[in-house]
Amino acid sequence: MTSYVKIPSHLRPSDPQGPDLLTQERESASFDVKELTLLLYGIKDLERYHKILNIIENDPVFDKTNIYFMGRDKLFEYTIKKEKRLVQLIKENKWNVEELQYAEWFLDMPGPFGAHRGMFIPTLIGHGTEEQKKKFLIPAKNYQIIGCYAQTELGHGSNVQGLETTATYIPETDEFEIHSPFLTSSKWWIGGLGRTATHAIIMAQLKSNGKDYGPHPFIVQIRDLETHLPLPGITIGDIGPKFGFNATDNGFMLFEHVRIPRFNMLSKYCQIEKATGKYSSPPNDKINYGIMVLIRSLIVTGVRVTLARAATIAIRYSAIRRQFIDKDEPKKLKDGRIVETSVLDYTMQQYRLFPIIAQSYACFFTSKAMNNLYTKYMEQSSDGNYSLLADIHASSSGLKSLTTTMAVESIEECRRSCGGHGYSSFSGFVKFYQDYLPNTTWEGDNYVLTQQTARYLMKTFRKVTKNPEKYASQIGTNPTITYILQYLNEPNQKCMATTPLDFNNQEFQLKAFRHRIAYLLANAVDQIDNQKKSWNSMLVEINRISRAHCQYLLVQNFITALQHNSQQQINDESLNILHNSTSLKKVMTSLCNLFVLHTMEKDVGEFLESEYLTSSQARLLRTQVYNLLKEIRPNAVSLVDAFLIPDALLSSALGRYDGKVYETMIDWASKEPLNGIILNIDPNNNNTILEKAKL
Amino acid sequence: MTSYVKIPSHLRPSDPQGPDLLTQERESASFDVKELTLLLYGIKDLERYHKILNIIENDPVFDKTNIYFMGRDKLFEYTIKKEKRLVQLIKENKWNVEELQYAEWFLDMPGPFGAHRGMFIPTLIGHGTEEQKKKFLIPAKNYQIIGCYAQTELGHGSNVQGLETTATYIPETDEFEIHSPFLTSSKWWIGGLGRTATHAIIMAQLKSNGKDYGPHPFIVQIRDLETHLPLPGITIGDIGPKFGFNATDNGFMLFEHVRIPRFNMLSKYCQIEKATGKYSSPPNDKINYGIMVLIRSLIVTGVRVTLARAATIAIRYSAIRRQFIDKDEPKKLKDGRIVETSVLDYTMQQYRLFPIIAQSYACFFTSKAMNNLYTKYMEQSSDGNYSLLADIHASSSGLKSLTTTMAVESIEECRRSCGGHGYSSFSGFVKFYQDYLPNTTWEGDNYVLTQQTARYLMKTFRKVTKNPEKYASQIGTNPTITYILQYLNEPNQKCMATTPLDFNNQEFQLKAFRHRIAYLLANAVDQIDNQKKSWNSMLVEINRISRAHCQYLLVQNFITALQHNSQQQINDESLNILHNSTSLKKVMTSLCNLFVLHTMEKDVGEFLESEYLTSSQARLLRTQVYNLLKEIRPNAVSLVDAFLIPDALLSSALGRYDGKVYETMIDWASKEPLNGIILNIDPNNNNTILEKAKL
Repeated sequence: MTSYVKIPSHLRPSDPQGPDLLTQERESASFDVKELTLLLYGIKDLERYHKILNIIENDPVFDKTNIYFMGRDKLFEYTIKKEKRLVQLIKENKWNVEELQYAEWFLDMPGPFGAHRGMFIPTLIGHGTEEQKKKFLIPAKNYQIIGCYAQTELGHGSNVQGLETTATYIPETDEFEIHSPFLTSSKWWIGGLGRTATHAIIMAQLKSNGKDYGPHPFIVQIRDLETHLPLPGITIGDIGPKFGFNATDNGFMLFEHVRIPRFNMLSKYCQIEKATGKYSSPPNDKINYGIMVLIRSLIVTGVRVTLARAATIAIRYSAIRRQFIDKDEPKKLKDGRIVETSVLDYTMQQYRLFPIIAQSYACFFTSKAMNNLYTKYMEQSSDGNYSLLADIHASSSGLKSLTTTMAVESIEECRRSCGGHGYSSFSGFVKFYQDYLPNTTWEGDNYVLTQQTARYLMKTFRKVTKNPEKYASQIGTNPTITYILQYLNEPNQKCMATTPLDFNNQEFQLKAFRHRIAYLLANAVDQIDNQKKSWNSMLVEINRISRAHCQYLLVQNFITALQHNSQQQINDESLNILHNSTSLKKVMTSLCNLFVLHTMEKDVGEFLESEYLTSSQARLLRTQVYNLLKEIRPNAVSLVDAFLIPDALLSSALGRYDGKVYETMIDWASKEPLNGIILNIDPNNNNTILEKAKL
Repeated sequence: MTSYVKIPSHLRPSDPQGPDLLTQERESASFDVKELTLLLYGIKDLERYHKILNIIENDPVFDKTNIYFMGRDKLFEYTIKKEKRLVQLIKENKWNVEELQYAEWFLDMPGPFGAHRGMFIPTLIGHGTEEQKKKFLIPAKNYQIIGCYAQTELGHGSNVQGLETTATYIPETDEFEIHSPFLTSSKWWIGGLGRTATHAIIMAQLKSNGKDYGPHPFIVQIRDLETHLPLPGITIGDIGPKFGFNATDNGFMLFEHVRIPRFNMLSKYCQIEKATGKYSSPPNDKINYGIMVLIRSLIVTGVRVTLARAATIAIRYSAIRRQFIDKDEPKKLKDGRIVETSVLDYTMQQYRLFPIIAQSYACFFTSKAMNNLYTKYMEQSSDGNYSLLADIHASSSGLKSLTTTMAVESIEECRRSCGGHGYSSFSGFVKFYQDYLPNTTWEGDNYVLTQQTARYLMKTFRKVTKNPEKYASQIGTNPTITYILQYLNEPNQKCMATTPLDFNNQEFQLKAFRHRIAYLLANAVDQIDNQKKSWNSMLVEINRISRAHCQYLLVQNFITALQHNSQQQINDESLNILHNSTSLKKVMTSLCNLFVLHTMEKDVGEFLESEYLTSSQARLLRTQVYNLLKEIRPNAVSLVDAFLIPDALLSSALGRYDGKVYETMIDWASKEPLNGIILNIDPNNNNTILEKAKL
């Protein structure tokens, strides 16, 4: 890339040097970083990781150097190039799903083919008949057609039942007529639709014989395969610039009485009979929930790596960045010169950042638990047993909401903890934050979702309260029933801690979270059932309930992983590594304590209100949080190293593995294309550019 | 502007229509919107407002239609054009400072001349001698030279004392030598430096006769006035893309032994004597603090309009957007059809948004109070009386930190409350948020600042505790002394509320906030003085103290404004309007109660921990918050209308005054330039563009 400014080559940063500081930090670790990495990835995935990274890093098409300088037009073109190259690599290397996932992670490129792979093809597989798959899935997998998934409309997001687009069966021609009756019926936000897709799965209100059957999926070809222009009666466009995701062509689409063959209604579960227009409905309506649960568990896994990526940048840069001399404890270089204190040594910085490392590990164990539960559910449901569904659907909804909100807050906390430089695109936080942000809204708005969780929990509370004996056998296996029964038995439970260290007691920790969620639940049920409060008037409490329940799940899963259980270990590579290494187990225990106690302390009002804690215990709790920060400090850099987020993904001058922060900042700045113009600043002269700069 | 997609012209949004909904909302107001607007602006400013808006709105150069589609290159060029036009208008219309402020507000264009007007010229005025002003100020005011203010360096932000750039006096030639010894010494983040400025005021370590005198300001010409190229020995560049502020050329700059005349050291207060190099220091070091206080009080005023702008968009769109049917209370159109419920009717949406309206009014009364205090201080200090300085410096530091953090959170809360569309640039939130964000870091990092506040408060606590009688006379006038003495007299104060409504009692409210801050303070002083904790180990508590103190100030200023005081009223147009209108006073009282109780409820842990509240009172408090939401609901749209944020500033499809949300969304989308290309999606073909679209 062109450098427009010549930086004097003899200059180097003032001492101490970034690389030396990171080396020191790495020497102070109490555990083996490689071992922890293995715990996180497992041996097979680690091999995959390196194989794919090697290909991505060495392919010139994927070079990211230029990306921060691109406007939307150039970024979009560049992303199409990358998408095409990725398709070539998939074919050349015959990548399986897991390998492709690594490639997509490293590329970090939400692009126009994303919905094709992530939504169009899976929906075809899930809802298409064999004939439909033959016709559409094969060309889709060969990228001869590109699909998108068109559900949301200009006027309707969360409430799918309220969609306006109609699909009316016309028996005379055995067709459906797709129509957009209003401006608000326009499909909107559809990834890959704006400029790319040739086909769409659209959700439309099915009408037949004057009856409404609610939203159903239909395949519609939307663009001509030769000219790539929209087909007659279809209006399509890109919806314009967004906070992030600007390399994706989210689109809008209106239909004016467009006909499609009856064949194009996705008919694995629902059918319209030829000529009669008779509708037949699915044998059970629980099918779709399984996929939703899976997607939400993937989002939680995504939170883990998102937090890891943010923490990596902030922790490494904080170890290098120095600010003020701490008068109580001045830092010295080897030659005796006093230097400013590393910002990582300030407790406030530790308090802001270390809990984020801990959150990432908490999400690791919870996403494992969710996957295990999902697998168990899929086994049972293939035998027609759906008993796990309600619980995992409720928990996964709430966990999606809780953890993605946490992720967005934590990226921003990490960014801001980098001071002014966090605001530079070169920090690696800007595009990262902007692209991650929609996670709080899509796949279920984070506020709306919590209603689903709370509704299930209240139902369970009523059920268990009515007949506690019936559920006693599920104590220990079903977390919801466990805390409800515990609360019913002992509604006035108190914390026994008398010293800060007592708060490390895992029994105290679990009891605290169980008591708090059960207390909130009991209160809310009382208000609705006895005080006759409306659901709407309870929405704020409902949100608190979902949050408290899911924080409990994160706490419980982390603690369970740390508890020795030879049966679990045999089946689990990570747990085996964890329990065979004293040093790993020690540092993980510190992180678990920090996660639990910091979460408690942030919401201490609820633990005080539920009267589990006293005022003086709240102070002890805070003291223990500060003690844990001190305990973790020597391991901070190594803990983020273990996440193994490659520089190629970080794209950060601040977070690079080698610590060359300032050299990179100025090198990248010299490449800013604006540095290639010379301005005319005369306010009376309307020409703004004097000339292009000569180097 | 070109439309690239033809939208079927017969389509309109489904019922009910946005304009009708806003009309209904406006009819339900219990007060006169124009009267409230007058309270906020005052008659003179309102005239100014309309005069300037009229000019800005009708000038084609300031048309913002295109702005969301521009990459950094185009945005920068366009901003230079706007800057030039603004300079022409300033000259043509002879705008005074207040008029220019309105123009800059409406233009909403952080651009390359900002630092010239906001930092370079004021510093020249504040620190230049008469000769220096003659030489630099006159051409600066005529825009013959453009200046910037170069303090921050690549390796140093908050710690100004640690800056590395040196200015060494050379007696032989009567010059200073400006030098950057390290890469980290490079000036960085300097607004207007990258491509624009001809001159810079640089902060450099003054050295003379082998002695160091710390950072001082120097004027350096940095570019040739003809060629606009950097002068010899000076390396300059733009620092590259950022989260926002991309129309500003924040720059970097390195000096290699650059000589400037001794004359160029800004010498109103500090001088170096010719030949001897003797340094003379300022008569008192309190001069700079006055300016800092002023800037911070302007930032709080800025928060008020920032919150108003965010709330305006979110409230108007929430009144129009409908989602789900509320089963307990279904909404009907006039013709009896059941329609989905307006999202503004959901308590969760009210809970998220109404406190932000209240925050804006809270900031209004506090920024007034700060300005009054600043004026009083300036009068006193001209007589050599600096007694107010420590208090207003501490409070303004903490208030800057608290309110800008609040503003960023509230913009994002408003954005997210708009669902998916909040993520679109057309929401008006995206550029707005991105440009506002640096307020949390600049003019004092929001975490670092709280140390200044807490240090002063602890000092005061120790002073008052030692000798309470001495300070008894200041009860009621000095807020800090008031709450400390109250706490010393009655450390175990309890809240007397027994019903939700009791929480509206302003005495209960004030006592709650006084007790809580004094409790935190007493605890922290005890830990430092008696338990010998280090300052660093206390940083988290220190941040809590500053926050609690400043929340108390906001609460107190709001309540004081509502209390009848004929003496104050005579001097204050706003208070006169407020106290002469029963309807305004009623709605302002609801907002004040909401602000106070919502703030309390969010941090309820501290009120419980300080044992002012009991567990059951915490529940009553929450109930009262929900009651207040209901009280405010009919006035919500009118309360944001009263802010009078013009459409030209909002640049929002969602927040427009007329409510034509969906029509505007699709109209703007049709103008996205990407819609002018036709893609080649064949993965085996490396050409991405098939052709430019024909309309």
